[in-house]
Formats: sequence, C-alpha cells, structure tokens
Amino acid sequence: MAEGAAILRELLARPGVVRLVGAHDALGAVMAEHAGFDGVWSSSLEISASHAVPDASILGKSEHLAVARAMCQAVQAPVVADCDTGYGDGVQFAHAVREFEAAGVAGVCIEDKQFPKLNSFAPGGQELMAVDGFAEKVRAGKRAQRTRDFVLIARVEALIAGCGPDEALRRAHAYADAGADAVLMHSKSPTVDELASVVRAWDSPVPLVAVPTTYFHATADELAAVGIKVVIYANQGLRSALAAMERTYAEILRTGSTASVEHELWPIASIFAMQGMDELEPAAERASAERASIEA
Amino acid sequence: MAEGAAILRELLARPGVVRLVGAHDALGAVMAEHAGFDGVWSSSLEISASHAVPDASILGKSEHLAVARAMCQAVQAPVVADCDTGYGDGVQFAHAVREFEAAGVAGVCIEDKQFPKLNSFAPGGQELMAVDGFAEKVRAGKRAQRTRDFVLIARVEALIAGCGPDEALRRAHAYADAGADAVLMHSKSPTVDELASVVRAWDSPVPLVAVPTTYFHATADELAAVGIKVVIYANQGLRSALAAMERTYAEILRTGSTASVEHELWPIASIFAMQGMDELEPAAERASAERASIEA
Amino acid sequence: MAEGAAILRELLARPGVVRLVGAHDALGAVMAEHAGFDGVWSSSLEISASHAVPDASILGKSEHLAVARAMCQAVQAPVVADCDTGYGDGVQFAHAVREFEAAGVAGVCIEDKQFPKLNSFAPGGQELMAVDGFAEKVRAGKRAQRTRDFVLIARVEALIAGCGPDEALRRAHAYADAGADAVLMHSKSPTVDELASVVRAWDSPVPLVAVPTTYFHATADELAAVGIKVVIYANQGLRSALAAMERTYAEILRTGSTASVEHELWPIASIFAMQGMDELEPAAERASAERASIEA
Amino acid sequence: MAEGAAILRELLARPGVVRLVGAHDALGAVMAEHAGFDGVWSSSLEISASHAVPDASILGKSEHLAVARAMCQAVQAPVVADCDTGYGDGVQFAHAVREFEAAGVAGVCIEDKQFPKLNSFAPGGQELMAVDGFAEKVRAGKRAQRTRDFVLIARVEALIAGCGPDEALRRAHAYADAGADAVLMHSKSPTVDELASVVRAWDSPVPLVAVPTTYFHATADELAAVGIKVVIYANQGLRSALAAMERTYAEILRTGSTASVEHELWPIASIFAMQGMDELEPAAERASAERASIEA
Repeated sequence: MAEGAAILRELLARPGVVRLVGAHDALGAVMAEHAGFDGVWSSSLEISASHAVPDASILGKSEHLAVARAMCQAVQAPVVADCDTGYGDGVQFAHAVREFEAAGVAGVCIEDKQFPKLNSFAPGGQELMAVDGFAEKVRAGKRAQRTRDFVLIARVEALIAGCGPDEALRRAHAYADAGADAVLMHSKSPTVDELASVVRAWDSPVPLVAVPTTYFHATADELAAVGIKVVIYANQGLRSALAAMERTYAEILRTGSTASVEHELWPIASIFAMQGMDELEPAAERASAERASIEA
Repeated sequence: MAEGAAILRELLARPGVVRLVGAHDALGAVMAEHAGFDGVWSSSLEISASHAVPDASILGKSEHLAVARAMCQAVQAPVVADCDTGYGDGVQFAHAVREFEAAGVAGVCIEDKQFPKLNSFAPGGQELMAVDGFAEKVRAGKRAQRTRDFVLIARVEALIAGCGPDEALRRAHAYADAGADAVLMHSKSPTVDELASVVRAWDSPVPLVAVPTTYFHATADELAAVGIKVVIYANQGLRSALAAMERTYAEILRTGSTASVEHELWPIASIFAMQGMDELEPAAERASAERASIEA
Repeated sequence: MAEGAAILRELLARPGVVRLVGAHDALGAVMAEHAGFDGVWSSSLEISASHAVPDASILGKSEHLAVARAMCQAVQAPVVADCDTGYGDGVQFAHAVREFEAAGVAGVCIEDKQFPKLNSFAPGGQELMAVDGFAEKVRAGKRAQRTRDFVLIARVEALIAGCGPDEALRRAHAYADAGADAVLMHSKSPTVDELASVVRAWDSPVPLVAVPTTYFHATADELAAVGIKVVIYANQGLRSALAAMERTYAEILRTGSTASVEHELWPIASIFAMQGMDELEPAAERASAERASIEA
Repeated sequence: MAEGAAILRELLARPGVVRLVGAHDALGAVMAEHAGFDGVWSSSLEISASHAVPDASILGKSEHLAVARAMCQAVQAPVVADCDTGYGDGVQFAHAVREFEAAGVAGVCIEDKQFPKLNSFAPGGQELMAVDGFAEKVRAGKRAQRTRDFVLIARVEALIAGCGPDEALRRAHAYADAGADAVLMHSKSPTVDELASVVRAWDSPVPLVAVPTTYFHATADELAAVGIKVVIYANQGLRSALAAMERTYAEILRTGSTASVEHELWPIASIFAMQGMDELEPAAERASAERASIEA
C-alpha cells in the first residue's frame, strides 16, 4: 500500500519540479494520471464543492478519506490528501494519519489555521494556530506514521492571514524542525513576488510546495527557479469542467438538443476507457457463459 | 421530504416536455438547477465513472443512495435516481424504494436487464429479465412506497437488446399495468426512428421517457411531438467536463502554467457561489466573535 | 420524516418521566423500542466504542449521522442524536442540524466542551467553551431548523468540569434563553446529590435531562421527583452486551463448544424477528417464482 | 496490509484447529482478539442484524467492506469477510477481492447460492448456482488477487439446500479444483453426523471449515477429529449480547434504575480500555498544552 509514498519520495529526491493536479474523485485522479501529472492532490475545496457545501470544515475526515481511498484504488500515481487542519489536535490527527496511510495515500497536508477553517481564498480574515501548537500537531502526525515513506506536508497560512514574510518563514522553519517532510507556502497574491520573497530566504533542505491559483502567470519553471520543488494546480480541473458544463447545459436548453455541442463532448467510449469498461468484455462473455450454465 | 416528488408529479401533469439532466454529485445537481433544468437524473453511468469503476453493477444501492441524498440536500428540483436493475428482486427493491424515499428522492428508475447489468451502450449483448419477473419487481416497489407522489419509472431495454419494437411495446404495457408511473423506452439507435416507431404505437396515459444520447439530433420538441413526455440528457454534462479537463491538463503540462487557459476557467468565486460560501460570511463573523469570547 | 420529533414533543408535554436508552446501531434501537423505552439515544460513546476508537472526536458528523439515519429507518420511536460539541462552530452545527433533521432524527444534543472533546467520564480535566460562544451555537442550531418539532438539547458540562452548581445553573439558563428545548445537566458524581442541588434551583419551564451512569441508585421516579423530565440510560445496553460476550467467548475457548452457554443465547429465530426476516417469507416465495419465470 | 493473510496462512499450515468468532463491528473484533480467538469472522448475518434489515442481500459490498476495514484497523488478528454470494458474477467479485485485500482483510468467503441470497437458517428452500458458474467465480476471484497470501474460502450450501452429501462433495471438489484455498461445508443439521459423513470422505489437502451453529454439541476437537481445520462460531457473540441487553432493558423499566443489574455490567473503564482511551491520556495532556499556547 505504501507504493504511492515511495514514488512520491523518489519524485522529491530527483532533480526537477514535481507537478500535482487537484481532483475530487477517482475519475479526476485517473484523468490526472492519464494526462501525465506526477501525482494527484485530493483537494478539500473540490471535495466540498462536489458535495455542494461550503469549504468550511463542514465535511471532515470521513469524506476526505473516502475520496482519497477511491483515488488510490484507481491510480498508481501518488495521491496527496488535503486534510484541512488535521481534524482536531495531535490525538485526532494521529488517528487520521494511520487511516490515510492504510488507504494507500502517499502523503497528507495539514494547514496551520484554527478549526473550523475557512477556505484561504474566501474574503475575510483567517485565524492561525499558535506555532507551537501546530508544530506539536506535526510531531504527533509523524509519530503516528507506520510506513517509512509517508509524507507529511505542513501548510503555512501566514501570508494568507496577512502576517507577513517573517512570520511565514518562522512558521516554515518551526514545522520543518518538527518533522514536516515538505512545507506548502500558501499565497493569494496576484503575483509570485510575495511567495518569492519568502522562498528565496529558505535555507533548509526541506522541499517547498506552491499552489499558483492567483499568481497563475508563474510557470512551473519560474517557480522552480526561485526554489519551489512541488507545484499543485489545485482547482483548475474543476473550474474548466464547470465552465464547460455551464455552456453545454445552456445550449441544450436553448436549442433543445445536444447536436450543436456534440463535437465538444467526449464520446461515451472514452468514458468507458477511463472507467475500465474495456477490461470487462472477455469477463462479460464469461459471465454470460456462467449464466447459461445455470442448471434447469 | 416528499416535495421533490410533488414537483415531479406536477411537471408530469402540466403540458409540455420535462427536461432532466444527468449528474453524479450534489454539485452537478446544483449546476442543473441553476441552468434551469426541470430536474436531475442521478446517473448510474456517471456515478460509476466518477468512481473509476466499470458501469457493471460494481457499485450498488449504497453508493447510489449517497449521491441521491446529497443531491436532495442541495437542490429543490426533483431528483430521479437511476437504480440499475433495482439491487435484487422485489424484496431488495422494496427496501431500496423506502430508502430512496427517505432520502428525499422524487422517483427511481429500474431497468429490465438481468443482474449484474452492463451499460446499455457497451458492445455485446444484453440479457433481459422475464416480463413477469420484472413486472413483479415493479409491483413490489409500488407496494413499498410510503408517500403518495413518489414516482417509479420502468425502463425497457428491449430495443437495446435487439428484441424489436413489438417486444418493447409488450414490456412497456406490462410494466405500466404493474403500476409503473412512467416508462423509459431506451434506444441506442443513431436516429430517433426506432424509438418513434414504438412511441407512436403507445396508447396508454402512462408517460414515456427518452434518453437521446445516440439520437442526439432529435430535439425535445421533436421528441414531444412523437409522444415523449420526459427527456433525459443523461451524460452530456460529464462528457463536456472531461473534454474540458483534458484540454486544461494538457495545456498546463505543455506551457507550465494555467495562464493560457485562465479565461476559460470559472473563477473561484463562482465555485464559492455554487457551494453556498456566500451564506457563510455573516456566520463566519459570528464564529470569529464566538472564538474571541472564549474565557481566559 | 418529522414524526419522531412530534412524538418526542408529545412525550415532553405529557406528565411523567421520559426514558431513553443508549444504542449505537439500528439493532440497538429496535431492541430499545421492543423493550418499551420511549426513545433511543444515539450514543457517541457507544458509537466510538463500536468503531474501537477513543471517545475523543475521532469520529464525527458523518459516522454519527449514518447511525442515526439507520435507527430512524428501523424504529418509530424518537431518536435523539448525541452530537458531541456540534462539529464546529455555529456554521458547522447549522449544517449538521439540517442533515440530522433530514435523516428523521427527533432531536440532537450538543455539549459545551471545547472541540476536540474527551469523554466526560475520562480521567483528567475538561475545558469548556465560553457561555456566550456556546449560546450562540445553540441559536445557530435553532435558526437552521426547518421543521417545527425538532428538539435541541444543550448539555451542560460544568459539573463534570468541576465548575460548581452556580456555573452549571448560569449556563443552563443561558442555553435555555438561547432557545434550547431542553437542558441536559451532566454529572459524574456517585450520588444524585450534586445533580439534585442544581435541579432543585431550576425555575424555568425548559425540561431537564439526566444521565444516571455513576449515580445509578437513583430511580427514574426519584429523578422525576427532584425535577428531571428525561432520563437517559446511555450505555448500560452495551455494557451488559460486552459482559455477556466476554463470558461466552471465554466459555467457547474453555470448553470447545457453545453447548454450555447455549441456553443463555438468543435463538437465531429471535434475531431474525428483530431484523424483519419474517416479512420476507411471502416475498421470498414471490422472488422464487420470479426466478422460475426467467425465460429460457 | 497483507499481514492478516500471512497469519491466517500460518494458522492453516500449523497443526491444530483454527477458531474464528463472528462479529459485526470493530469492537467485536477487539473482543474476539482479546478473548484469544485466532481470528475474526466478519459475519454477514450479524452485520445485517446490526442494521436491522433482513439477511437477504439487502446490504452489499459497501457495508461489508466498511465493517471489515474497521476491524482490520482495530486488530492484528486475521479478519475473514463473509461476502455472501460475491456481489455479482466473476467480474464483480474480482473487484470485491481487490477492495477487501486493500482493506487488509486476510480472506473472504463466498457461497454458492443464487443472488439475492437468503440466510441459510431461514425456513424455505435455497437455490444454488450451477457448479461450473460458481467455480468460475472462484477462479475470477483468485485471478484478481494481488497479494500472495490472501485466502478465498468457497462455501458449499448443498447440504443446506437438501441436495445431499454426494452433491456437497462434488461441489467441494470443483471449488477446490478452481483454486479455493479452503472449503466451508455448511450444515444446519442438529447433529454433526451430516457434516461428518461428507468430511470423512474428503481426500483433498484443501482445508475444511465448519460453522457449528445448529450442531453446537460438537466441540472443536471433535470437529478436528473428523477432519475440520477451521471452526467458526459465527453468531454466538451477538446472540449472547442480545439476551443480556434484553434482560438489562427489562430490568431498567421494571425497577426504574440499573442498580439491580449494575454488577452484571462492564465498567465504563473496561469499554475505555477496549477502545484505546488509555493511549490518549498523555496525548490529551499535550493537546491541553497546545490549546493553552494559542496566541492571545
């Protein structure tokens, strides 16, 4: 079950940037792997959106774990689970670590906001945990880990919360010292400059992770150049999907059929390929033979 | 909880065609309602695809129910659940009816294939249940129903299985006689002619349902003109979403950023709107005040 | 779906004490109803125990909701769900209220501890929320409620936390003022005196609830005499079950068979009766006929 | 994750009878391990009973898997999952095998009844699958297996269905030839003679499994003497638990308190021990320190 973690460790160790893409179900993970991404980010924003509930700790460990487990059953690529604030204190997070490990997840990410969290891009202020409290949560997670390669990413929300680069760096160091295997430095600035100012001052071997949602002009290579090891495209898949669905739905209602958009739709056969229908055919023939053999 | 069913009954009773669109999660249901569809089809194909498993009875009642329940929590529009072959015989289907009713579903649809089923668009033959056996399953479902308005749709797979229009009509009548509130006449012909030949011979007040996946040139009005009351666009949302995700993923990997596709993506704020983040803001302010008041 | 709540309201309005008994699955709820209890307490302690995880916010809304929903499908008697600290602040609790309502639950109970909680009988101190913060959580829950009769019970942990009767009364009044439909005054004293001292000073029409786990000598009538309206036997079912299982297991291993304990075991037929197997028989005959009619 | 399977293989290889005990949740598994049983039988009858639904394929893979997964998280002892008829044909069972393997289950058992099944102890006839069809299902399961040690038990219902010892033996050989790692020869005779007549004629190295529910006078040693390798006490834990709950509930309602039965109840502290509360204490102290350190 720890194969995903081993692959992720190898990706972190070799030269070059590692690219993950966000998803909220097993199909998204399959799409990501098929496209050629290095791994899958089981996105808390996407999962809450898919349930049509706010991204504000309304879903929890149970829903996140179910998604991550289904992803791990569906792909070989490493799956990293966005675990919000870790579902409690150290005690609760330690339990979560063991469950995500058992589900085959390569790693988890927890952020240093207070529970219940609010999405980092939502308007309004964010309250952070004390550095020591969060560092202890990181330590509890690392103590709980049963397999060697499982990766714990600590996410610093100091820039999001407007606490400035010094506080961001202080927290990043504290979490790395506590055993985090990587540090996600989150920023919602429209340019990469805010992030770069922090990253350039980073002098630790612990790899840094970035999520270029608002500073989307920065390429993976540019991010690598300032010192980022892992880039997560956290929500663009869902955002393109919803835009496409909106157009398709409007067109059906406007024209009364799907004829005008049919050329933009995947064929059913492509969905079948993604969900493994092709493997079934010989099996289906066998099954048919089985039924035929039922005794009269 | 029976509101969805009452709305669906009203839609069936008033003049004009009723349009449902397929979805596999609560967000899809919200998108459908927001676009202006009359209701949501909780699609077994889409749900199996989202789990990245073949559409072949690998998922069952539990997964279908979870999706339908989440949809009913998220939208006012009626949700009709695609229940494959009904999860067993009459006994098992009766239990399912009560569970889907309790979840707030407006209606369910079962098809007259043998368990375990294979998707109707998959290559290879389909085996049907005996007419009498399936009619008894319909009766068991109707007997189990607790609320007045709950709708049971019986889906005829005779055209899919190549049994011809006479058999299709014979089955449609048998299921209507058994108490089905509507009959879905499925066809995978590239034109509407096959369906039309059956529908034109239909002389029962029980409404007919069509799924124009392969005969996509037929508009809702054209289908209504031959006698179809309900049109289900069962999978086009997902098919457009996957095409968009594929392009977005390829572009990220090709260019190193999302800059070139950013104009095609929904803004994060639109996702927030769909998942109800806006309702949270005053609440979040209150929550913040709550935390501030924690005694020292 | 709101029938359970209506029954609970009626029980609260009529003279006499109301008796609930703890359970952790639908079978326990059926056993409780069959024995003649007025309702079922979906116990957080029992649910965590059944999952073999500590009673310390390791399970959450998802697991509690699944149990409560299954109970409501199985019994007519009102089900009251123990919701720990409410799964977050007011925003999260409001969502939970709507989900428990939709599941058919008659009422929920939340306690004024800090998240993550620790079981009230565990050694060590307990930290409480500020009165104002918890009162706001109660208000958020009442605002979220969609049906008229749904009952919100606010649980005061002040005696458990060693804050004394005055603080306990102050909190009880604040929560009643915030709209709580009942107040659970929890105590882990070995005698009823601690509870009685608080209850005797209660001058509000809001009914009081007691959980006589440690002060088990107090009868329902004695509790009623000091002013308790609802008595919850929260965990004795599980505790008797585990004692019996332990003896049975030991005897099997000691003697090599169940012969020596067989007279202490329920017959299989009694389990069948509890799980509704009897309803199946005519149905099973029908199902058998269905299968026989499958066309050659 | 395959540790349970390795332990089970070792138990099958060493001399002496292997004793499993039925359970329906993680707590039951912990009780079984604590008592000293060799492993846990995740019982389909017990699971359906715990959900208060008939043991008749109303629950399926999803519910069985959730229970088995929770058990595997809670105990080191091997868990064998009762998978009814395998959730479909070979295609569906192959998927199930991979999911139960990933959940950490040591092995699964499938029975040669028709879907939907009815409990073997229920009155009325049983319909069996054709030998060839079931043997192919066994082969499909073995082909799907990813780990070396995973155990597939094929359960012969021929004696239950009244087909006689010759048919039972014929089926047992066919399933062993198809790759079954063990054969469960089920009997509902009040004496062991029926089973013994079949077992004595067994000349294959594939181990045999027995479930002495009705022939409860037969000890494990007696069963071993006729050639049984594994004995499953499939439902006695639940049956003793329900008897105890019934007495306790009646006594509470009769006397108004639990005082008269308190000596028969497990102390809360024993439940805490079973659910791992003791591990929490130092952690809880740390958590408390964390909270104290939240910045003002």
